[in-house]
Amino acid sequence: MPKLEAIVPYSRTAKVTSVTDLPTEEAKWCSLKKIAYEDETGKSRLWEMAERRTRGKAGVDAVAIGNIILHPSRPPSTVLVIQYRPPLDAYTVEWPAGLVDADETVEQAAIRELKEETGYEGRVLSISPIVASDPGLTNANMQLCMMEVKLKEGDPEPEQRLDDGEHITRVTVPLSELYDRLVEYANTDRMTVAAKLHHFAAGMHFSKTAGFP
Amino acid sequence: MPKLEAIVPYSRTAKVTSVTDLPTEEAKWCSLKKIAYEDETGKSRLWEMAERRTRGKAGVDAVAIGNIILHPSRPPSTVLVIQYRPPLDAYTVEWPAGLVDADETVEQAAIRELKEETGYEGRVLSISPIVASDPGLTNANMQLCMMEVKLKEGDPEPEQRLDDGEHITRVTVPLSELYDRLVEYANTDRMTVAAKLHHFAAGMHFSKTAGFP
Repeated sequence: MPKLEAIVPYSRTAKVTSVTDLPTEEAKWCSLKKIAYEDETGKSRLWEMAERRTRGKAGVDAVAIGNIILHPSRPPSTVLVIQYRPPLDAYTVEWPAGLVDADETVEQAAIRELKEETGYEGRVLSISPIVASDPGLTNANMQLCMMEVKLKEGDPEPEQRLDDGEHITRVTVPLSELYDRLVEYANTDRMTVAAKLHHFAAGMHFSKTAGFP
Repeated sequence: MPKLEAIVPYSRTAKVTSVTDLPTEEAKWCSLKKIAYEDETGKSRLWEMAERRTRGKAGVDAVAIGNIILHPSRPPSTVLVIQYRPPLDAYTVEWPAGLVDADETVEQAAIRELKEETGYEGRVLSISPIVASDPGLTNANMQLCMMEVKLKEGDPEPEQRLDDGEHITRVTVPLSELYDRLVEYANTDRMTVAAKLHHFAAGMHFSKTAGFP
């Protein structure tokens, strides 16, 4: 298995120094809510959920960019981003993604985030319905935006446009190797693969290997 | 588009009656945490996250069952579950799934949850690495357990074994129709598709339609 140090270019890696309880009223980015609801029999019940405080007019928290990189002499590939995620104290492997800003559309957010995190400019192929990130825990939702990036022979690697404090490593993986590469990353110390990306790759892998029409 | 009432068998549907702030110290199932961490430059930074309080010895919060139903005279299919999810105030379409109990393995949880939510007994084909449900928001994680259920001609529909308060509708969908069916559900009023299931189906769909090897 590869080591994290061989994958990210930093001389030191990020790490958690403390984790403390956060009172709901002090939280800026998320909150806890108590939901009272009536079930199908009319009985009153309670549920607890976490919520993002940042949802804007698009009605959707986040967009992920399922991207296809086409190049005249290389196999069809996808660019993944590897970054430190404090909740996991690990480096995650994900498709480029981000929160949709208050005043932008999901398409605009997808084009912007792909460019910021990877440098690539692409065109939108399709946008998924709004889907629920983890329906038992949170109302957080997202859309998967499929985008295509067409490169020419000899195009230079574009520059990322990262915000202050963002340390994001790009890796370009042939689509035919995506599933195996994710399993390799998932078995690397201090690395975790995002569930949604894993599921897409697992769906591709299943389709190719299950032997069903 | 189908209507929700044509999909779930209840004479009334569940609904939220109130949503209120939940102080972290009163929450039983989840909590908010403040993370202090050092980034790659040694700079101290803060992050907010939501956490489940229920993780047991398996080190993983949840398991989802990517199931394949094989029958002598029907196309290879998968059974999905539709249930009211208070965080979304909607009926979600997901693969059978649940939290891993404190003292069970992920395999045991998968076999148990499939049986409880759908009635089917199956065998485990493979288990994914531990993957992160929504890495910017939470440390919540899960494993995708692929399972196979072999039916014989004339086998009766098995009975679900639902807990008190669980109202879960099963639907069996041919794998070849999964992607289109999910899009249809996602466009139905008061229904939402879970992101992970959508991504698996989108990966299958992509593999079949992209024209790449």
